[in-house]
Amino acid sequence: MIKHTLKINCPDKTGIVNEISQILYKHNLNILESDQFVDSDTDTFFMRIVFCGTYDSGELYDDLSTVLGEDADIKLHGKRKKNIIVLATKEHHCLGDILVRNFFSNINANILAVISNYDTLREFTEKMGVPYHYISHENISREEHERKIINTIEQYEPEYIILAKYMRILSSSFTDRFNEKIINIHHSFLPAFIGANPYKQAYERGVKLIGATAHFVNQDLDDGPIIEQDVIHITHKQNPLQLAKAGREVEKSVLAKAMQLVFDDRVFLSGNHTIVFK
Amino acid sequence: MIKHTLKINCPDKTGIVNEISQILYKHNLNILESDQFVDSDTDTFFMRIVFCGTYDSGELYDDLSTVLGEDADIKLHGKRKKNIIVLATKEHHCLGDILVRNFFSNINANILAVISNYDTLREFTEKMGVPYHYISHENISREEHERKIINTIEQYEPEYIILAKYMRILSSSFTDRFNEKIINIHHSFLPAFIGANPYKQAYERGVKLIGATAHFVNQDLDDGPIIEQDVIHITHKQNPLQLAKAGREVEKSVLAKAMQLVFDDRVFLSGNHTIVFK
Amino acid sequence: MIKHTLKINCPDKTGIVNEISQILYKHNLNILESDQFVDSDTDTFFMRIVFCGTYDSGELYDDLSTVLGEDADIKLHGKRKKNIIVLATKEHHCLGDILVRNFFSNINANILAVISNYDTLREFTEKMGVPYHYISHENISREEHERKIINTIEQYEPEYIILAKYMRILSSSFTDRFNEKIINIHHSFLPAFIGANPYKQAYERGVKLIGATAHFVNQDLDDGPIIEQDVIHITHKQNPLQLAKAGREVEKSVLAKAMQLVFDDRVFLSGNHTIVFK
Amino acid sequence: MIKHTLKINCPDKTGIVNEISQILYKHNLNILESDQFVDSDTDTFFMRIVFCGTYDSGELYDDLSTVLGEDADIKLHGKRKKNIIVLATKEHHCLGDILVRNFFSNINANILAVISNYDTLREFTEKMGVPYHYISHENISREEHERKIINTIEQYEPEYIILAKYMRILSSSFTDRFNEKIINIHHSFLPAFIGANPYKQAYERGVKLIGATAHFVNQDLDDGPIIEQDVIHITHKQNPLQLAKAGREVEKSVLAKAMQLVFDDRVFLSGNHTIVFK
Repeated sequence: MIKHTLKINCPDKTGIVNEISQILYKHNLNILESDQFVDSDTDTFFMRIVFCGTYDSGELYDDLSTVLGEDADIKLHGKRKKNIIVLATKEHHCLGDILVRNFFSNINANILAVISNYDTLREFTEKMGVPYHYISHENISREEHERKIINTIEQYEPEYIILAKYMRILSSSFTDRFNEKIINIHHSFLPAFIGANPYKQAYERGVKLIGATAHFVNQDLDDGPIIEQDVIHITHKQNPLQLAKAGREVEKSVLAKAMQLVFDDRVFLSGNHTIVFK
Repeated sequence: MIKHTLKINCPDKTGIVNEISQILYKHNLNILESDQFVDSDTDTFFMRIVFCGTYDSGELYDDLSTVLGEDADIKLHGKRKKNIIVLATKEHHCLGDILVRNFFSNINANILAVISNYDTLREFTEKMGVPYHYISHENISREEHERKIINTIEQYEPEYIILAKYMRILSSSFTDRFNEKIINIHHSFLPAFIGANPYKQAYERGVKLIGATAHFVNQDLDDGPIIEQDVIHITHKQNPLQLAKAGREVEKSVLAKAMQLVFDDRVFLSGNHTIVFK
Repeated sequence: MIKHTLKINCPDKTGIVNEISQILYKHNLNILESDQFVDSDTDTFFMRIVFCGTYDSGELYDDLSTVLGEDADIKLHGKRKKNIIVLATKEHHCLGDILVRNFFSNINANILAVISNYDTLREFTEKMGVPYHYISHENISREEHERKIINTIEQYEPEYIILAKYMRILSSSFTDRFNEKIINIHHSFLPAFIGANPYKQAYERGVKLIGATAHFVNQDLDDGPIIEQDVIHITHKQNPLQLAKAGREVEKSVLAKAMQLVFDDRVFLSGNHTIVFK
Repeated sequence: MIKHTLKINCPDKTGIVNEISQILYKHNLNILESDQFVDSDTDTFFMRIVFCGTYDSGELYDDLSTVLGEDADIKLHGKRKKNIIVLATKEHHCLGDILVRNFFSNINANILAVISNYDTLREFTEKMGVPYHYISHENISREEHERKIINTIEQYEPEYIILAKYMRILSSSFTDRFNEKIINIHHSFLPAFIGANPYKQAYERGVKLIGATAHFVNQDLDDGPIIEQDVIHITHKQNPLQLAKAGREVEKSVLAKAMQLVFDDRVFLSGNHTIVFK
């Protein structure tokens, strides 16, 4: 039994669930899971349906479009894995976790390549069977560096770009080009400790929790739609280095959860929010 | 805008969502929330819909029954508060929390009365404006004690009976009489530490977590369908008394969460499981 | 066996643990618990010792002072309950929890009085056997309002002042007067969402966690030393009102934990940090 | 500055802290961290001290022995990494995590070898630079299989043996041989769901939490001293396979935490309990 996922978001109106369920019924499709939500701030309807059955995707799409109107965003996903590129710098904890999951086919994605501004992670990446592109940022302008990265990314045509502790700020021309496709892991429970060195900031503020945030990247640094967050309790005993060490465990698990949610087609974007059907 | 909740569970069949949504559409009702689940072990369909609009509940019920068949369990709830009775013994932490929420109308229920086998909690209960029935278990048989409690309960006709640390074992004739209506808070993360003195058991086993479990009560002690559970981390420093003290905080919060879920009509029973639409 | 707590903080030096343990040994006191920490940023030594035995507190204090020097802050606490005043506004969740604990002697404190700028919580407070002072802020200046509150507080000579959702900003003359004695519960995981209406801010930012922070109050609003923090996971389904409702449960439990830690003499202040020996 | 760890457990007596601190002072050693605990059930004193300074370990040991007596268990650890062997079967999640940490020197241990009763994990293990011993259990008796494993283990002289989802029951002759040296990760929050297939058991019981337990292995299956435990919340939507998938993330993190605690010399055994100084 092959499962398919239908994602719909469109302006809300009365009877919309009825209309969608009638179309699926007419196409002889059996609904296995169904989640819906209406964002009353924007009067937008969101629905995720997992169904099984054989169907003509063109006809199904047309039927849905006719009923839901031009403004509707309708996506049909088979269970194919998403194609992704991972950007990293020097830290191995997030990249290592992703590459091991990929090695054992334990992630709903194919990692096409890793790109880094250092050569540090090459050996591990290549052992894991993934091409490694070292694109140094030294002695070239930010624009040129980004252009090189964009060129490398585009030859792979990825559906998502994962920033697995990529420690360079991206220009808006970069983020615009891959709009709604870039996922970052930030080493704080945003919006606390925006910017550089959040563990030092956390230590100085004397917080009792540190956390991590996985979010889509838009033009505003650290301000994109949040997909997943988590925290751990800390104590006065932990200095900034120890906080960073403890925090890396949260970063690793939060990024893994966010990737799974996105790759399972459970995440919608709604302005600066995400709708996540768990 | 008055919200109504529709709960349906029935044997699963193709097109069931379509049929239900058509009926709601025909009655001009607007769906605000909808959750569904198919238990594939038993091929049972569960649905919870929150809707608004005016309707004839007899006609709506009939229309749903006609389509869903005789085996369907259909419940329509307006936003009325549930009527409940609370049983307690001597411990105040769960009862205190419930009565304060009731005092400030911060719980989706009316507490009709408190029944206890001790007189300890009378003063507090009466200050909170709730009748207190002291029914001692001393010098009478278990049967007679339960008969007295049942008589008291039945004069109130409650929809739910909350065991807020009621420390007497109930006979099956008691639990059968109030089938699917009794909610207990157990002081361990069941099924660990079934039976008496779970904090002592936890201490002796040397666990690093203790917890609490809110569950419906059936004939088998500590074995009814679980509604909600939670745990806290503990250390070697805590002796059984300190574990019990820490555990009471979890008991209090787990029971409060479970009550809210049940009273908001979010919980279905399915054999020994619960389906909880959060 | 009566337990006593000794709290010491002083400039760190070699052999300090040895010196303190020799003095306790000389006084024939038996150490039951001992925690220590050196803040290497400030070279400050912190120690909390729980001991039993009979002793002359003047002599013990003198012996410790002689060895530790004039800069040492030495505190000896018997197991007496702390005397506290609670300030509230209209919300009942934190105050209710504290007063019920007080009613059942389940808190390491005596609540001497409740002060509020509304009369809303009088009935409940008085039922719980605690004097209630309604000091309206209307038609008087901030200074005058604070003066009236200070006068009321000072007649009770409390050791701590608990802001249990007291929704007025305190002037620095107020906070200076009760330096290191005021504990506030803030309805966000500080430093995120400083200022007014953090649940609305949280909703607008689209976070997946909300939290609460208990902290000592100093001149800088929302910026005092943090004692305890916790968070809960939230979803896109929850609007600001529902976030506030869910958040109140965390506020209640975080404030209760912080108060227990402080009243058990487990918390030290160190600049803008706290050292908490759990 | 090189840090050393001193672990002491011995019968409790008055003045013991004083005696130990005097000896360290005499040897001119500076205490950086100190934790102590008295198990009042057995009147046993536990102490962990981190200190710096140069010393003659023989003399220090002799001085401590003289004062603490023959029953004292005194251990001095430099910051050297522990030598360990990992046993696995087919599942990669725990082993993968451990080997990646080892590859990047991000674990306080040297993995000398991996032993498995399947050949499944060889490729990954060898890529990570660690020898892999495939010792099939097929067509040989349990005794012979264990004898082969023991022979392989003993050629490495490891300090700890990690069972990273090794799915074979060990005989008491095996566990006795490596007493207090074997750490297992169990896929449930023990003592719930002892034995085979805990995720199926959890599903059938309808729990709302699943967990994992890292423990020392003794003769009684699933009954050894617990080092670390954690849980995650689950819902009715998750079938046993999905529970197992979600559970693997907890197993991975709980085992990693337990290993770090043990390898940092923070864990004491006390009968069937552990004392863990975090």
